[in-house]
Amino acid sequence: MAARVLSFMAHPDDMEFTCGGTLIRLKQEAGCEIVVATATSGDCGSVRHRPDEIARIRHSEAETAARILDAEYYAAGAMDLLIMYDAPTLRRCTEIVRRARPNIVITLPPADYMVDHETVSRLVRTACFGAPIPNFWTEDPDPAAPIESVPHLYYVDPVELKDPFGKPVPPDFVVDITDVLAAKEKMLACHASQREWLREHHGMDEYIEAMKRTGAERGKLIDRPFGEGFRQHRGHPYPQNNIIAELLRIT
Amino acid sequence: MAARVLSFMAHPDDMEFTCGGTLIRLKQEAGCEIVVATATSGDCGSVRHRPDEIARIRHSEAETAARILDAEYYAAGAMDLLIMYDAPTLRRCTEIVRRARPNIVITLPPADYMVDHETVSRLVRTACFGAPIPNFWTEDPDPAAPIESVPHLYYVDPVELKDPFGKPVPPDFVVDITDVLAAKEKMLACHASQREWLREHHGMDEYIEAMKRTGAERGKLIDRPFGEGFRQHRGHPYPQNNIIAELLRIT
Amino acid sequence: MAARVLSFMAHPDDMEFTCGGTLIRLKQEAGCEIVVATATSGDCGSVRHRPDEIARIRHSEAETAARILDAEYYAAGAMDLLIMYDAPTLRRCTEIVRRARPNIVITLPPADYMVDHETVSRLVRTACFGAPIPNFWTEDPDPAAPIESVPHLYYVDPVELKDPFGKPVPPDFVVDITDVLAAKEKMLACHASQREWLREHHGMDEYIEAMKRTGAERGKLIDRPFGEGFRQHRGHPYPQNNIIAELLRIT
Amino acid sequence: MAARVLSFMAHPDDMEFTCGGTLIRLKQEAGCEIVVATATSGDCGSVRHRPDEIARIRHSEAETAARILDAEYYAAGAMDLLIMYDAPTLRRCTEIVRRARPNIVITLPPADYMVDHETVSRLVRTACFGAPIPNFWTEDPDPAAPIESVPHLYYVDPVELKDPFGKPVPPDFVVDITDVLAAKEKMLACHASQREWLREHHGMDEYIEAMKRTGAERGKLIDRPFGEGFRQHRGHPYPQNNIIAELLRIT
Amino acid sequence: MAARVLSFMAHPDDMEFTCGGTLIRLKQEAGCEIVVATATSGDCGSVRHRPDEIARIRHSEAETAARILDAEYYAAGAMDLLIMYDAPTLRRCTEIVRRARPNIVITLPPADYMVDHETVSRLVRTACFGAPIPNFWTEDPDPAAPIESVPHLYYVDPVELKDPFGKPVPPDFVVDITDVLAAKEKMLACHASQREWLREHHGMDEYIEAMKRTGAERGKLIDRPFGEGFRQHRGHPYPQNNIIAELLRIT
Amino acid sequence: MAARVLSFMAHPDDMEFTCGGTLIRLKQEAGCEIVVATATSGDCGSVRHRPDEIARIRHSEAETAARILDAEYYAAGAMDLLIMYDAPTLRRCTEIVRRARPNIVITLPPADYMVDHETVSRLVRTACFGAPIPNFWTEDPDPAAPIESVPHLYYVDPVELKDPFGKPVPPDFVVDITDVLAAKEKMLACHASQREWLREHHGMDEYIEAMKRTGAERGKLIDRPFGEGFRQHRGHPYPQNNIIAELLRIT
Repeated sequence: MAARVLSFMAHPDDMEFTCGGTLIRLKQEAGCEIVVATATSGDCGSVRHRPDEIARIRHSEAETAARILDAEYYAAGAMDLLIMYDAPTLRRCTEIVRRARPNIVITLPPADYMVDHETVSRLVRTACFGAPIPNFWTEDPDPAAPIESVPHLYYVDPVELKDPFGKPVPPDFVVDITDVLAAKEKMLACHASQREWLREHHGMDEYIEAMKRTGAERGKLIDRPFGEGFRQHRGHPYPQNNIIAELLRIT
Repeated sequence: MAARVLSFMAHPDDMEFTCGGTLIRLKQEAGCEIVVATATSGDCGSVRHRPDEIARIRHSEAETAARILDAEYYAAGAMDLLIMYDAPTLRRCTEIVRRARPNIVITLPPADYMVDHETVSRLVRTACFGAPIPNFWTEDPDPAAPIESVPHLYYVDPVELKDPFGKPVPPDFVVDITDVLAAKEKMLACHASQREWLREHHGMDEYIEAMKRTGAERGKLIDRPFGEGFRQHRGHPYPQNNIIAELLRIT
Repeated sequence: MAARVLSFMAHPDDMEFTCGGTLIRLKQEAGCEIVVATATSGDCGSVRHRPDEIARIRHSEAETAARILDAEYYAAGAMDLLIMYDAPTLRRCTEIVRRARPNIVITLPPADYMVDHETVSRLVRTACFGAPIPNFWTEDPDPAAPIESVPHLYYVDPVELKDPFGKPVPPDFVVDITDVLAAKEKMLACHASQREWLREHHGMDEYIEAMKRTGAERGKLIDRPFGEGFRQHRGHPYPQNNIIAELLRIT
Repeated sequence: MAARVLSFMAHPDDMEFTCGGTLIRLKQEAGCEIVVATATSGDCGSVRHRPDEIARIRHSEAETAARILDAEYYAAGAMDLLIMYDAPTLRRCTEIVRRARPNIVITLPPADYMVDHETVSRLVRTACFGAPIPNFWTEDPDPAAPIESVPHLYYVDPVELKDPFGKPVPPDFVVDITDVLAAKEKMLACHASQREWLREHHGMDEYIEAMKRTGAERGKLIDRPFGEGFRQHRGHPYPQNNIIAELLRIT
Repeated sequence: MAARVLSFMAHPDDMEFTCGGTLIRLKQEAGCEIVVATATSGDCGSVRHRPDEIARIRHSEAETAARILDAEYYAAGAMDLLIMYDAPTLRRCTEIVRRARPNIVITLPPADYMVDHETVSRLVRTACFGAPIPNFWTEDPDPAAPIESVPHLYYVDPVELKDPFGKPVPPDFVVDITDVLAAKEKMLACHASQREWLREHHGMDEYIEAMKRTGAERGKLIDRPFGEGFRQHRGHPYPQNNIIAELLRIT
Repeated sequence: MAARVLSFMAHPDDMEFTCGGTLIRLKQEAGCEIVVATATSGDCGSVRHRPDEIARIRHSEAETAARILDAEYYAAGAMDLLIMYDAPTLRRCTEIVRRARPNIVITLPPADYMVDHETVSRLVRTACFGAPIPNFWTEDPDPAAPIESVPHLYYVDPVELKDPFGKPVPPDFVVDITDVLAAKEKMLACHASQREWLREHHGMDEYIEAMKRTGAERGKLIDRPFGEGFRQHRGHPYPQNNIIAELLRIT
C-alpha cells in the first residue's frame, strides 16, 4: 500500500515554500497520498484585512494549493505569533495527525527564523509520538482513532537555510525538484494575499524569486538546478530508515 | 423567508428531552430550518467505554437524531462536567451560532439540575449577543461571517421542571406536542447509549417514560396530553415579540 | 475629609448612562473626589474600526468624559464580551480599587442585560473585599498599598430597569438628577463613537433619548423629572449605612 | 453501616462556624464518620504572616479542630479570594469527595457574603455529581476510585443569615445544637490565628460571640437556645429524603 | 551529615532506567538518603487500562521500586505527553524539591527522545533555583519551608545515548554500576505494567535487555561491564564541584 | 534622526550588569534615545520583604537607574521564576516594544544561567517580529500603534559568560566600556536591595566586583580594561547590518 504523507507546518504557504516539490514527487512517483496541515490560518498576514477576514482568505488559498496535490487541508486553529506548546494546541495537532494517518510526517525545523516555526516543530514531534497512544485523548468532539505506529519524521530547511545566529544548517539529504519546479511555483502562487503581504511587511516583492533562490542553493549540493533539503528526526521510537530517500530512490 | 432555529444544549439528548416536539412542529408547520448543537459530545456518558469512545458513539447518535429534523449537528468540543464560561468555549459557541445563522435560539435555563446546563445557558446567551458583532472574532481557522442581528432567545424547562431547591419553575408558555410525541420519542430513542447509561448511573431505566411524564405535566397547563414549556429571554437587545408563539399560532 | 467615589463599570459609557448624574452631585454638593474605571476599552464597539483602533478611540472618549468630573480614568484591560471572573482580571480590578482608594464604590448590578455586566458586578464586589487585605497581591509591577477598609458598595439600575426575564428591578433609593441632567448629557455625548455604533448595531439612534427615558422613569418614583436608582450591597463586611443618601441628604 | 459525612467549605473555620454542632451530633448520636475539607488553607488570613506562612499555620489549626471530630482534613489547594469554578479546582474537589466517600455532603450556600463561598457551593455541587462517574478523571497522580452514588447535599446558612442584599435566608430545617455548643466553641477556638485576624480586618473582636449570636437566632426558630440551619439541594439526581433529619430524629 | 539525593524524572521507570545503579551506590557507599519523584504517574502507559487506572497501578509500582532504596516517592500530578513548563507544574515541582530537601538533584537531560523529558529537565532546573527563595510560594496548601541553598544538579544520559538527530551525547563522567546491576534490574522489574506496554507500543519486548545494553555501552567508556553516564549543570549559582564523583570516589 | 534603543531584560539590574556601559555610550556618542524594560519587578529579590513590597522597591530602584540614561522604564508585569512564553506575556512585551518604538533592541541570550533569562530572550525576539504587524493586537486598553519595521536585535553575554554546561559563549563583538565604567557602576549601585539580596541568597557580597570581573574578562578580547560582549540575531527578517558597531565606530 502506498505511503501517506502529512506536511504539518506553521502557516499557510510554509509547505509550498519548503517541501512542495518533494510532495509532488512523492505523489507522482511513489503514489503517496498527501495531507496538508498548518497550525494557523495566517491571521496576521495582512495590512488591509482584519484577522478574521484574512484567515478566511488564506484558509481558502491553502485549500486551493492543497488541491493541486489532491490533498485535504486542515488548520489547527492557532493564531499567528501565538502558537504555543500547550495542551489544547497539542491535542488539536494530534487529532490532525490521527485523521491524516500518515507514515511520513514533514514539519518545520527545531531552530528557525521565528518562534512560531520552532514551536510547531516541537508540537508535531510530540503529536507523532502521541498519535498511536490510545490513552492520549485529543478531546475532539468526534475523535479519530489512534494510528498504528509512530510515523517517520522529517524537518525541512529553515528559512534562508540558516539558524537564528546566521549559521548555515546543512541538510541530511537533498531532493531534486528541478522537474517539478513549475508545479511548486503554481502551488506557491495560490497564496496571492501572502505574496502581497510579504511585499508590504518584509519589503520582499519577489515571493516566487525567493523560493527559487533557496531551491537553487540547495540544488548546488546535488549538482542540480533546484533542490529541497531535509533532516530526519532519529530519536527513539521514530523509524530510523530514510523512507523518503527510498521512495524517491535517492542514494 | 422561513425562520432558522438553533437548538443549543449542553449534552446530546438534551434537545430531544426538552424541545424536540417543538422543533418538529416548527419544521413541519412553519417550514423552519433546524440546526442542532451541543457543548459536549457526552464523554462521561458511559460506565463501559472510555471518554473518547463514548464521545464518538454519542456524536454519531446525535447526528442520527438530528437527521430526523433534516438538521446539521455541531458539537462545541467541551467536556462533560467541565463546561466552562471561558473565552475558548465562548468563541466556539459563537462560531456555531454564526454558522447556524438563526432567527431563533433555544437553550437551557439559567437555573437547572446541573451546573453544565446553567453554564451553557450563559454561554449561548452571550454567543447570541456577540454573533452579529464584527469585532468579536471566534478565532476559528475558517470563520463564518457575523450574523445580521441578535436572534430571539428561549429557555426550555429545567430537568424535572424545578430549580435546585426543588421549587417549580413555571413556563411563560407551553407548546402542544401531543401530535408529534411519537416523532419526539423516535428522536430520543436514537440515543441508545445514553438510555443504557442513565439506567446504570441514575437508576432510571425509563428514559422514554421520564420524557413522557414531563411532557404530560406540562400538557396539563394547556389541557392537552403533552406539552413543552418555554421562557423567553427579554433583556435588551434580544427581540421582544414571541416569535415561536406566532409561528405556531399559540394564543 | 471628603469621600472618594469610584465608579467601576464594564464598558466606557456605562457610568455616563447609569450614575453620571449622581457622581456630578457627589462632586458638586459633597466635594467628593471621583475616579472612573471600566473593565474594557470597548474594543467591540465599532463596525468600522479594528478592535485595537476602536479601543484607542474609546479610551480617549472615556478620559474626556471623566475630565468633566475631574476624574482619573482607568481601564482594566479586559475585552468586550470576554470579561471573565478569573484571577488575572480580579487582580487588575483590585489594583484599580487600591489606586482609587475609595470610600464608596458604584458598580453594575448582579443581574443585567449582558453577562459582561454581571461579571463586572462580581469582580468589583470581590475587589472591594480584597483591596484592604495585605496578603492579596495584585501582581502589579508597581503595586499600590492595600486600602484601609472595605468601601460602601452600590449597584446601579440594570439596563432598561429590568432583569433578563423582563421583570422590573426596583431600586432601594433614587437620586434626583434633574438639576444636573445637562451635565450628564454632556458626559454621555463625549462617547461619539459609541453613539454611532449603538445606532448601527442595536437600531437605536437615540443614544441621549434612551438615557433620558430611563431617567424619567426613575424620576417618577420620587416625583421628580429625572432620577437614578441604586441598590446597596449589604453583605458582611461592607458598611451598612447609606452614605450616598447621607451625603446627598436623601431621606 | 453508619453514614459518612463530608463538610466541604471555602476556608478553615467555615465549618466550625456553620455546622460544627451538627457534625458533633451526627458523630455522637448517629455514629457517623466525619471528613473535613476546605478549598483554601486561608492564605489571606493574616496581616502579619506571608501567605505561605499563614497557610501552614491555618492548615495545622484546621487539622487540630478536625481531630475533635476524629476527622481527616483535606485542603484543595485553592487560594483565598481566588477560588475559581475551573477545571483544575473542580478536579481536586472531586478527588476529595472520592477519598471521603460520603453519603452526606454539607457545603456553603449558593448566595453568601463573599464570592469564594458561592463558588465553593457550585464546585461541591458538581463534585458530588461527578464523583460516581468513572469517565470523570480527577487527574490526581494516585486517584481514588469513583463513589457508588451521588450523596445527599446540604447548604449551611449564609454568614449573618442573609443574602448580599441583606434579605434573610430562611432554612429548610434547624438542628438543635444546644447540648453540643461547648464542643462547637472548642473547635472554633482552635483557629487562633483567624480569631486575631478577623479582629484586625473586620473590627470584630468577638469571634466566639458572633458564632453564638447566629446560633441563638437560629435557635429561636425551634424554641431552643442554639441551632444551625440547613437547606437541602433537591435537584435531580441528588437523594431527596432528608437523611440528616432522619439520623438526628428531627420531625 | 550524609547527603540527600533527589531523582526527579518525567515518568515512572525513568529513574530505574537511567540512574538507578548510581542511587543504589550513593545509598550503600555514601549513606545518602534517597527521594524519588516523577512528573506524571504514567497515565498513557497502557493499551488496556484507562488513564486513571494505569496511573493508580504505576504509582504503586513506582512506590515499590522506591522502597528498594528506602525512598519516599512523589508524583507531581502532570500527565503523560502533556508535561508543560507552566506556573502550576513549576510550583508543584518546587514543592517536591522543598519536601525532599536535597543536596543533589538528578534529572533528565535538556535534549532527549521526547519533549516530556526535555520539559522536566527545565522544570527541575528552575525548581532547584527557586526552592531556597522564600518569596517563591508553591501555593501548596501545607507548604514546606524553603531549602537552604541551591543543590548540585546533574543530567542523566538521554534515551539511547543520543540527541533527537541521532548524534551521540557524551557524558561528563561515568559511574560504574557493575556491582549493583542486579539491584538495578530488580527495581526496573517492579514496573510490570510498563514492561508490557513498551512491548506493545514500541515493539520492544526486552525491557531489561535495553537497560543492560545502554549500561554496557556506557561501561565501555570506563572499561567496566556496566556504567551510567552523567553531565553536571554548571550554570550560576549551582554548586560547581562534582559531589557525586567525590562521594563515590570517582577520579 | 538618532536611533532609539530598547534594553529589554528579565529582572531589574540585568541591564545594568550586562549592557549598561554600551547604553551610556550609545546615548553620549550617538545621541540615542534609550528605553529600559524588564519582564518582572523582581518580586523574589528579598528575604525580608513580601513579593509586593520588594516589587515596589525594585520598580523604584529601576526607575532611578534608568533616569541616569534619561530613559523611561517599563515593567511587563511578569513574576520572578515564572516568566512564561505565553500569550498574555507576549502581548505585554509587544506593547512595550511598540511604546518604545526602537531601532535597536538588546535582550538576554537564548541560553543563560536561568530559564527566566532564556524565556525573555524568546519573548523579545517574537515581540520585535510582531511589533510592526497591525493584526497583532496586544489587548492593551490604550494600545500603541505598530512600529514601522523589525528592529535590530542583539543578545548580551550570558551570566558568567558561559552556557548551562559551563562552556564559554564567545561574543560576536565587544564594546569598550572603559571610559564609562564609573557611570555603569553608578547605575548598578541604584539597585540597593538587590545588592543585599544577592549577598544573602548567593553568598556573593561583591555585587559591583562581579560586574567588574566580567567586564575585565570581556575587555581582554579587545585589549582594553573593560568591555561588554554582544551577539547579533541574524534570522530573517531582522536587519543584518551591525548598527551598534556602526554607531560606536567599532571595526
